[in-house]
Amino acid sequence: MDNLMRAQVLVNALPYIKDYNGQIVVVKYGGNAMVSPELKDAVMKDIVLLSLVGVRLVLVHGGGPEINQQLKKIGKESKFVGGLRYTDAETAEVVQMVLAGKVNKDLVALLARHGGKALGLCGMDGRMIEVEKKRSEVDLGFVGSITKVNTQVILDALDNGYIPVISTVAADEKGQVYNINADTAAAKIAAELKAKNLILMTDIRGLLRDKEDESTLIPQVQVSEVPNLIRQGIISGGMIPKIECCVESIRRGVKKSLILDGRIPHSLLIEMFTDEGVGTMFL
Amino acid sequence: MDNLMRAQVLVNALPYIKDYNGQIVVVKYGGNAMVSPELKDAVMKDIVLLSLVGVRLVLVHGGGPEINQQLKKIGKESKFVGGLRYTDAETAEVVQMVLAGKVNKDLVALLARHGGKALGLCGMDGRMIEVEKKRSEVDLGFVGSITKVNTQVILDALDNGYIPVISTVAADEKGQVYNINADTAAAKIAAELKAKNLILMTDIRGLLRDKEDESTLIPQVQVSEVPNLIRQGIISGGMIPKIECCVESIRRGVKKSLILDGRIPHSLLIEMFTDEGVGTMFL
Amino acid sequence: MDNLMRAQVLVNALPYIKDYNGQIVVVKYGGNAMVSPELKDAVMKDIVLLSLVGVRLVLVHGGGPEINQQLKKIGKESKFVGGLRYTDAETAEVVQMVLAGKVNKDLVALLARHGGKALGLCGMDGRMIEVEKKRSEVDLGFVGSITKVNTQVILDALDNGYIPVISTVAADEKGQVYNINADTAAAKIAAELKAKNLILMTDIRGLLRDKEDESTLIPQVQVSEVPNLIRQGIISGGMIPKIECCVESIRRGVKKSLILDGRIPHSLLIEMFTDEGVGTMFL
Amino acid sequence: MDNLMRAQVLVNALPYIKDYNGQIVVVKYGGNAMVSPELKDAVMKDIVLLSLVGVRLVLVHGGGPEINQQLKKIGKESKFVGGLRYTDAETAEVVQMVLAGKVNKDLVALLARHGGKALGLCGMDGRMIEVEKKRSEVDLGFVGSITKVNTQVILDALDNGYIPVISTVAADEKGQVYNINADTAAAKIAAELKAKNLILMTDIRGLLRDKEDESTLIPQVQVSEVPNLIRQGIISGGMIPKIECCVESIRRGVKKSLILDGRIPHSLLIEMFTDEGVGTMFL
Amino acid sequence: MDNLMRAQVLVNALPYIKDYNGQIVVVKYGGNAMVSPELKDAVMKDIVLLSLVGVRLVLVHGGGPEINQQLKKIGKESKFVGGLRYTDAETAEVVQMVLAGKVNKDLVALLARHGGKALGLCGMDGRMIEVEKKRSEVDLGFVGSITKVNTQVILDALDNGYIPVISTVAADEKGQVYNINADTAAAKIAAELKAKNLILMTDIRGLLRDKEDESTLIPQVQVSEVPNLIRQGIISGGMIPKIECCVESIRRGVKKSLILDGRIPHSLLIEMFTDEGVGTMFL
Amino acid sequence: MDNLMRAQVLVNALPYIKDYNGQIVVVKYGGNAMVSPELKDAVMKDIVLLSLVGVRLVLVHGGGPEINQQLKKIGKESKFVGGLRYTDAETAEVVQMVLAGKVNKDLVALLARHGGKALGLCGMDGRMIEVEKKRSEVDLGFVGSITKVNTQVILDALDNGYIPVISTVAADEKGQVYNINADTAAAKIAAELKAKNLILMTDIRGLLRDKEDESTLIPQVQVSEVPNLIRQGIISGGMIPKIECCVESIRRGVKKSLILDGRIPHSLLIEMFTDEGVGTMFL
Repeated sequence: MDNLMRAQVLVNALPYIKDYNGQIVVVKYGGNAMVSPELKDAVMKDIVLLSLVGVRLVLVHGGGPEINQQLKKIGKESKFVGGLRYTDAETAEVVQMVLAGKVNKDLVALLARHGGKALGLCGMDGRMIEVEKKRSEVDLGFVGSITKVNTQVILDALDNGYIPVISTVAADEKGQVYNINADTAAAKIAAELKAKNLILMTDIRGLLRDKEDESTLIPQVQVSEVPNLIRQGIISGGMIPKIECCVESIRRGVKKSLILDGRIPHSLLIEMFTDEGVGTMFL
Repeated sequence: MDNLMRAQVLVNALPYIKDYNGQIVVVKYGGNAMVSPELKDAVMKDIVLLSLVGVRLVLVHGGGPEINQQLKKIGKESKFVGGLRYTDAETAEVVQMVLAGKVNKDLVALLARHGGKALGLCGMDGRMIEVEKKRSEVDLGFVGSITKVNTQVILDALDNGYIPVISTVAADEKGQVYNINADTAAAKIAAELKAKNLILMTDIRGLLRDKEDESTLIPQVQVSEVPNLIRQGIISGGMIPKIECCVESIRRGVKKSLILDGRIPHSLLIEMFTDEGVGTMFL
Repeated sequence: MDNLMRAQVLVNALPYIKDYNGQIVVVKYGGNAMVSPELKDAVMKDIVLLSLVGVRLVLVHGGGPEINQQLKKIGKESKFVGGLRYTDAETAEVVQMVLAGKVNKDLVALLARHGGKALGLCGMDGRMIEVEKKRSEVDLGFVGSITKVNTQVILDALDNGYIPVISTVAADEKGQVYNINADTAAAKIAAELKAKNLILMTDIRGLLRDKEDESTLIPQVQVSEVPNLIRQGIISGGMIPKIECCVESIRRGVKKSLILDGRIPHSLLIEMFTDEGVGTMFL
Repeated sequence: MDNLMRAQVLVNALPYIKDYNGQIVVVKYGGNAMVSPELKDAVMKDIVLLSLVGVRLVLVHGGGPEINQQLKKIGKESKFVGGLRYTDAETAEVVQMVLAGKVNKDLVALLARHGGKALGLCGMDGRMIEVEKKRSEVDLGFVGSITKVNTQVILDALDNGYIPVISTVAADEKGQVYNINADTAAAKIAAELKAKNLILMTDIRGLLRDKEDESTLIPQVQVSEVPNLIRQGIISGGMIPKIECCVESIRRGVKKSLILDGRIPHSLLIEMFTDEGVGTMFL
Repeated sequence: MDNLMRAQVLVNALPYIKDYNGQIVVVKYGGNAMVSPELKDAVMKDIVLLSLVGVRLVLVHGGGPEINQQLKKIGKESKFVGGLRYTDAETAEVVQMVLAGKVNKDLVALLARHGGKALGLCGMDGRMIEVEKKRSEVDLGFVGSITKVNTQVILDALDNGYIPVISTVAADEKGQVYNINADTAAAKIAAELKAKNLILMTDIRGLLRDKEDESTLIPQVQVSEVPNLIRQGIISGGMIPKIECCVESIRRGVKKSLILDGRIPHSLLIEMFTDEGVGTMFL
Repeated sequence: MDNLMRAQVLVNALPYIKDYNGQIVVVKYGGNAMVSPELKDAVMKDIVLLSLVGVRLVLVHGGGPEINQQLKKIGKESKFVGGLRYTDAETAEVVQMVLAGKVNKDLVALLARHGGKALGLCGMDGRMIEVEKKRSEVDLGFVGSITKVNTQVILDALDNGYIPVISTVAADEKGQVYNINADTAAAKIAAELKAKNLILMTDIRGLLRDKEDESTLIPQVQVSEVPNLIRQGIISGGMIPKIECCVESIRRGVKKSLILDGRIPHSLLIEMFTDEGVGTMFL
């Protein structure tokens, strides 16, 4: 490809750039989607680019695989209850260390290497996330449910030109630390910030009519259709909570929510700056 | 080309975007370089894009062909003295009307159509340019020489997010209007603004070792080599004043001055956002 | 007159100055009212003075006579349809050049000479005026009707201490330029800015009960009386659209609209800074 | 005089208004110059006008006659030592009450009635004036000498749009109140503020070559000529300290210092806004 | 007491400091409560401390005893009508001098000595208080009733970091000065500022069930209980207007109003920064 | 102790509070000094109090014991070379997790619980710390030496009202993470911020003339005396690098550096807000 074509590509991005200029976009970058260093690098480049062209980008991250690995190191088995990690006190501590200390700050450093100016935050910083023990039928230990999001610390970061990178751990008033589901946290943060987009980056292709066949991807879903899709079994299993996050954020004012395949290189840029839709969009 | 490649192109522009973020770049867009509507459109798109990704871009324009055309319409012959337009009172008025009223506002409208927020200014606005009659061996009529550039109005425009588009006509204290060479004006404005780059867009390939052979383009020249290149006759004729503008701006603090071929589509973007040099660069 | 009397005059202006301090006043300065250079000079001095004593003054100008003169120069006849100029493509171009390039920037230069800091704008700058073809029974060519006024560029100019000088030409989304009636534009701008006053400077004495007798001037009219005055034939002909501008601006929140005789030297100052009313005031 | 002449007068003030726009002028308004209520009213109107047209005016006042009157009321004789008031503790208290409580706040109220926004301050407010006992051959009691002027409180007032009105009493670190000569204080304040002008309003015509003959007024004096004028006896008696204040302020950066006849109505406006000089100017 | 205990005390104030941070508190410091120099000193220290730890404190003062003393000095008897001072023209002048010139500026100086940055204001400054003659059955002379409080000058002072110290004298539009009850003024100012607290410092213990027995102090009263307490005679005499001020301020949005015993050293700090209530609180 | 005494203690802190108002103080809170939860709680309360009364406090923390504990958990032995921890890649990762993820965010949460608004940062955030491998005679692995401190992120935090809490890990341009000595980092940060004080909180009494006898504490040392004290062996061992930090910060503009005994409850407040010196002060 010659440079003229390159310039042409940049120019073609113009209407998209203009559209997103000054808008808040919350990206949840999941643990499984960050497995390959090359992909992680590509996503971080996308984010720095988006930030430089004026998108007020907020990055919420997970880190399941790294948590598992660390638990293994200290000889502790991961215990799951109904698909959710049971979090005892020691696990909560590991989760905090790995997420807020390792995954978060590594992302901050990676963004810095690509020219970004990032700030690594967690729920405790500026009292961003208020939390209580999640109520559920089976006890999940120190798994938290968000009672309030204080966006001031995020807005301060954005206003000073930083990309806020957020770990979803938070402490209650007694200082007890809770692990919070990152999809849920991202959705609540997006809603509270009145973000333009919420983007959940995962390791699946999107919502498929036939789970075995990627060619049956449903590119766009009206929020009102979701209950029916659940009844039909098209939305099922682990997709249900994820899509409920999308629905909830739309209900609370986010313009567009997306499930995006993080395994596709630069899926973020392709989605935002081209006419090609990647993954499934909820409106 | 697929969207992945497109995204890749955007990402590759990252280090360049970062480098230019918040920097002032003065572009002189010359009359001959704006002949084709398609090219003009392409240049305006480049400028809107540069502005959106954080370049503080100042556009200085010429308009010789349109002036000639208008003079012809009123049945007045263009008169040149030693390659410079002789400007009588009536011509000065036509120059003002065509530049500040037609070329300038058309560019502003074109930038607006591509999503830019532009402000059409001339030397009188905010008393930007102070002028006196240019001293020269032969009388050139109302051809002006800049005595001072007041950058406040340009900086106010940039700070409020506008792309300042500047016609190089100005009035002296008695209200007499003068036509000012746009290359010279652009160089003085760039110097006064301590711009990072001054880019003179023309309709030639750049400085050629052999005028007949574009493959002999000299991509880069140290300011100190210029006198020697003039002696050797490599810099000659109409190139001399143009290159003197480049040299002068560098001497007064501009980091890099360029003569760029406006006939190459998107030469501005290629020059600024790829590793390919287009035209001749002076440092 | 001795200096004590001079000082006394200044002091007597005190309550008026105080009253207008920080208020927006939109002045439409018409083509016929700017015929004599001495009068034009006097009006510009008034405007600089008003601006220096804290009035946030916006100057909207016409330029019919200068347009006619330029059309004549290129051998084109002015064509009028029902009192309105028929504007073909070539005429639209001349209107743009003359208004935005000549009349506008000459006013800017004149204001500068009297110590004012002015900014010459037209409908394209900062996308101030959105326009469409004016619907009318007979085709008027490129005569435009305002669909939206974006006041940001005007407010930015005022906030940075400039006197915005506005030509009422604007381009639609395809880049086609339209000529817009300056009275109408001034009224819409005043309404959108929530101006304190709209002042239409013309070359007539005001609204006369008997058109032949200036001593029958009606100094003040309630907006509610206008329909009746039209029915009685007191408001008729070219006065109808002018007065409709006054009425419309009052309806949309302007406190006071005036038709002022621009032929009376310093009528602007006399109106605003003395107890003498000049012309006809609508409330 | 008709309104056209009135407007003409306003317009003629334009270059002066422009010149003083945004400049600091310190006016000392002396006790003897404020005797007649009509004159006081006229001076306050002048000051409000100056403030409205953009002069950053600081008013320092005296109040000798009102102090004498109050001392008389409590049956205390004014005692003078070498032309200076001997200030015992009880007198210091009266001075404070009369200046900061009566004269000052009355001026503030008078300015308010003419539309001004004033703030009545004394040396204690915002710790504006630091003071110590004045060293002199004969003991003067609690007569103070300024050791430092903190201009922050004055600048805060000006920046918020107030006219600061200043009484020259101040307290030392133990809380002892001192009476400070108002001319000296005004000169020090003007110097510290880098004022454009210092104007001492008095009840004399200015510096006269022959004290008995007002026609021998010296309109302008170079600071370097002052010692010679003292030697010649032209500057003598009470004029010496007054003129030393003028000289000192010029030495410390004030552009122009004036002794102005407060008995001439509107002498302030005549001096500042016409070409007529009133009183004696030091440069 | 050792330093550890001292530090412990500071730390225990933490929740209170946090609670008051950035909040407006209006303190009325009455004439009788300022009798002893030691107590006055202590109150001023409290106020400087409160200001330094982030309370936006407004000090309104009285000065009855000092007024009486000054009236006596000039041989004028204080005349009371129904418990209220009859204020003839001469008395009004003395009130203004003593309050705005002496008591006010002495407090400003005292605050400065303890490290505070204060600004001495009265009703005329920045046209803070608009006043008219108080309507009452018996003529009270120049006793004023507030028609409007313009808080801008108070807020400007607070925003620039000053402690506003306010004398409750004001002038009407003709310049006539009125004496205004300081409790009433403080209540109106607190209401207009939407203060968190209004604190009336007096020389009594608070509201007592049995006037002879301080142990019968009523620590807290609901505003709705006040009419009943008046009927029972528990609130009576001079307490009625004071408590009406408290009630009125609560009705207009103040969170808590207090009658506080100024004779108790540091009662202000004890009330605000400990769990001990001093005096009677109205909510 | 009664409340009067409590208030008295608060008032006595007034001059100290005034002195520190708006000043930057950098506190290094060391690993050994944070052993007891009660002490840690007390220190955090001190810090919140200091922040609320206007000190711009920056907290730099260590965490040696918690690192050791975590290394033990994963079955890794801490290896020391010449008193310094040898840091292999796996250790560097643990250091990052424990410091930036656990110790840092726990302090942030603790500050929040006492009413503070804190922000947990490390060297990567906002590219605060630029680092390279520390040059030393024996290889220490990934132990870093600071090449530059970018204070912008710290100042942004302070300006927005946050207490910055800093972990001293940083990444080089390749993303390699380094462990940095917290004393050194605190000293460099304090110097770069032109802090008023640098306070190193440790678990020793200060500099002792006789190490066995706490009564031989040297309360104050001139920087120029340090070489002599080293020669005499009074400063020796682990004290040498600590004291060199103090000396270096003083040389670069910090007013006062302190070694403070973190085991004494509220030693921070006692040192700063009483006349009692705790530990050893360097000037």
